[in-house]
Amino acid sequence: MKSCGVIVEYNPFHNGHAYHIEQSRETAQADCMVAVMSGNFLQRGEPAIIDKWQRTRAALQSGVDLVLELPYLFAVQHSDYFSRGAVQTLSNAGVDAICFGSENGAITPFIKAHETLTAHGEVFNNNLRKHLDEGLSYPEAARFAYEDIGIASIDLGQPNNILGYSYIKQILDHHRHVTPFTIERTGSQYHDQHMDGSIASATSIRKELLAHGEMTEKALDAIPLPTLDGLNEYYQKNKVWHHWEHYFSLLQYKILTTPAEQLQLIHGVDEGLEHRFKNAIKKATSFHQLIENVKTKRYTWTRLQRTCVHILTGLTKEEARHWLHEGTAYVRVLGMNKTGQSYLNVQKKRMNVPLLTQPQQWSHPVLDMEERSVAAYYSALPAQQRVECMSKEYGSPVRI
Amino acid sequence: MKSCGVIVEYNPFHNGHAYHIEQSRETAQADCMVAVMSGNFLQRGEPAIIDKWQRTRAALQSGVDLVLELPYLFAVQHSDYFSRGAVQTLSNAGVDAICFGSENGAITPFIKAHETLTAHGEVFNNNLRKHLDEGLSYPEAARFAYEDIGIASIDLGQPNNILGYSYIKQILDHHRHVTPFTIERTGSQYHDQHMDGSIASATSIRKELLAHGEMTEKALDAIPLPTLDGLNEYYQKNKVWHHWEHYFSLLQYKILTTPAEQLQLIHGVDEGLEHRFKNAIKKATSFHQLIENVKTKRYTWTRLQRTCVHILTGLTKEEARHWLHEGTAYVRVLGMNKTGQSYLNVQKKRMNVPLLTQPQQWSHPVLDMEERSVAAYYSALPAQQRVECMSKEYGSPVRI
Repeated sequence: MKSCGVIVEYNPFHNGHAYHIEQSRETAQADCMVAVMSGNFLQRGEPAIIDKWQRTRAALQSGVDLVLELPYLFAVQHSDYFSRGAVQTLSNAGVDAICFGSENGAITPFIKAHETLTAHGEVFNNNLRKHLDEGLSYPEAARFAYEDIGIASIDLGQPNNILGYSYIKQILDHHRHVTPFTIERTGSQYHDQHMDGSIASATSIRKELLAHGEMTEKALDAIPLPTLDGLNEYYQKNKVWHHWEHYFSLLQYKILTTPAEQLQLIHGVDEGLEHRFKNAIKKATSFHQLIENVKTKRYTWTRLQRTCVHILTGLTKEEARHWLHEGTAYVRVLGMNKTGQSYLNVQKKRMNVPLLTQPQQWSHPVLDMEERSVAAYYSALPAQQRVECMSKEYGSPVRI
Repeated sequence: MKSCGVIVEYNPFHNGHAYHIEQSRETAQADCMVAVMSGNFLQRGEPAIIDKWQRTRAALQSGVDLVLELPYLFAVQHSDYFSRGAVQTLSNAGVDAICFGSENGAITPFIKAHETLTAHGEVFNNNLRKHLDEGLSYPEAARFAYEDIGIASIDLGQPNNILGYSYIKQILDHHRHVTPFTIERTGSQYHDQHMDGSIASATSIRKELLAHGEMTEKALDAIPLPTLDGLNEYYQKNKVWHHWEHYFSLLQYKILTTPAEQLQLIHGVDEGLEHRFKNAIKKATSFHQLIENVKTKRYTWTRLQRTCVHILTGLTKEEARHWLHEGTAYVRVLGMNKTGQSYLNVQKKRMNVPLLTQPQQWSHPVLDMEERSVAAYYSALPAQQRVECMSKEYGSPVRI
C-alpha cells in the first residue's frame, strides 16, 4: 500500500484542502493519505476555531485516511521546529512520500536551495545570527540569510514556501527514504483576508465566521459539508468558536500572578519580554491591545502569540530545549478510516517509536505538555462541556 | 487621642458589626476606632462578596475611623497566623486597646486560659502534635490539646472564642502595652445560615444575597444603608457579587496546567494533596464538587478553600514560611475619615514600620503577594472593569 503524508492544520478544513488531498494522492499515486495535524493550538500561536477531534472527523470525511497528531510541543513553534516534528512524525509512521503546497508547484527549486544551503551552511548561520543581532525578527533574518547565500530561486517571503523549504530540509537531511512532492496552490493566498468563490484561505473563512458569529453563505461556499457539520455541532454543544479573546482573561490572570523571574522561564519569553508583558497587561482590556503594546520590530505578532500560548500552558524553556532536541517520541492517532486502519496494521510492526491510540497507554513528558495545552484550550468552555471535552483526550481516536 | 482596634472582615458590614464598633468604642472609651480588615480573600478561604474598597467605604460610613489592610499573606491563614498579622498590624499602628466579640463577653477566662497555656506549653504542643498525627484537623486537634491541659473555662469549639483566644495569646505574649477587651456577641452565631431580624451573621446575609442574586427585604433588614449602597454600586458596575464558583474555571485551569511537582510547592498542598486535587479536578464541574471530593477528616472544607486560594495566587510554601515568620512589615491604610487622619498624623512619627497609603511607595515581597491576590480576585470581572478595579490597588485610600 503506497502512502503519502501531508502536513496540515485544517483550521477549518476547506475546499482548498480537499483539492490538496486529491492532487497529492494523484501525484504520489497513494492508496493511503496520512495527515499530521496540529492539535488545539496552531503554528501561528492561535487556538483552533474548533477542537482537534471535530477537525479530524471533517478531514476523514473529506478524503484523508489517517490523521496523526503533531504534538503541541512542535506545533506551536517557528517553521524549523514545526517541520521537524511534522516530518519526523510522518516518517516514523512510515509514509513513502510527503506532498506540500507551494507557490509554483515545482520541487526542483526547493532541492537546489537545499544543495546551496548544505554547501554554505556556516555562512548562512553566521549571517542569520548577524541579522538577528541587527534586531530583525526570525523569519526576516532567515529570509535575508537565504538571500545572502544566493537562494533566490524560490520566494522565501511566501509563508507556504518558507514551510515547504523547511520540509525539504528535514526530508533531505534526515529522511531520505521519503520522496518529496509539491503541488501548486490554487485560489487564495495563505493569509488572504478576503474570500471569494469556492477556494478561500482558512484565515478568511475564520474571519468571516468569527465576525458573524454564525455560518454565512460566503463561508458555506468555501467548505465541504463535513466541515459545516463539525462547526455547527461544536458551536451548538459548546457555545463557542475559539479565538484569542476568549483566553484574554486567563492570560491576564496568568501574567499578573506569575512573578517576573518565573515568567522569564517560559519558552519564548526572552530578553526582558517578561517586563514588557507585565507592563502592558496591566492596562490592556483585550488580547489585541496587549500584543499591539508588546510588539516590536524584533517580536512579530506571530512570535508573541506563540509565546502567549506557552505562557498559558506553562511550557518552560528547559522543557522546550530538551524535548525539541529529543525529537518526536511517539506517533499518536487522532482518527482513521478503514484504509488508515489497514495501513497502520502493517506499519505498526515496523515503527521504532510507540504508536498511541490512547495517550494513557504511555507516560511521557511531551504527552504531559499535550494535556496542559488541552486544559488551557477547553478552559474557554462552560464547566460541563469543559469536562466532557477534556475526557476525549483520554478516549479513542475518531473512526469512520 | 485614645484608640481601640478591632479585627474584622466585614463581608459585608452588617448591623452586628455596627453594634460591635459602638460597644467597643464605649468599652475602651476610644476616640478613634481602628479596624484591621482582610482584603479581597478571607480567613475561611473565600473571595469577599465585594472588594476591599467598597467594604472599607461602608465601614467608614458606619462608625469606623480608620481601616488598615490585613495583608493577604496573613488574612488567608488559620487562626494563629491570622491573629498574629492582625494584632501586629494594630499594635504597629499604635492602638491602646483591642476589643473582640466573644460568646459570653468576659475577658478573664481568656486571660486565665493563657496563663494555663504558658505554664503547660510543652504538654500542649506535644498533645497538639499527637492529635494531628491521629488524623484530626488543626482546629479539632487544637481544641483537644487545650482541653488536655484543662482550658475548659471557655468553649474553644466556638469560632469566635478560638479567634478571641488567639488574639489574647498574641497580645499577652508580644504586645503587652495593648489592653484587651471583649464584648458579648448578640444575635446570630458566626456561621448561622438562617437570618431573622436586624442582627444576622455575615454568612447568612451572603447566602441570602447570592441565592437571590439581588437585594432582598431580609438582607436589607440586617445591613446599614452604606452597605446597601456599596453592594448595589459594586454589582451595577461589575456585574458580580463574588463567590467561589466564579473562580472554578480558573482554578481548574491552574490545577490542570500545573505539574504535580510544582503544585506541591504551594502553601497548604501537603502530604500528597496535589494528587488528590489533580485527580478530583478532572471530573469536577463545580468548586463545591471539587472540595467534596478532596476533603477528608484531616482536611476540612475551610482548610481546603484556603489552599485553593493559594493555588490561585501561587503563594508558595517558601514564601509563606519566610514571610509569616518575619511578621507584618508595614501598615497599609485602606481608608480613613478626619478622626482617622488626625490619629495617623500623630502615630506615624512613632511607627517602626513604614506607613503606606499607596503600595507603590514601597517595594516588598508581601506587597507582591497582595498584588497577585488582587489580580486573582478581579479575574472574575469583565475586561474593562477588571482593569479599572485593579488600578485602584495603586491609587489612594478611601477618604470620607
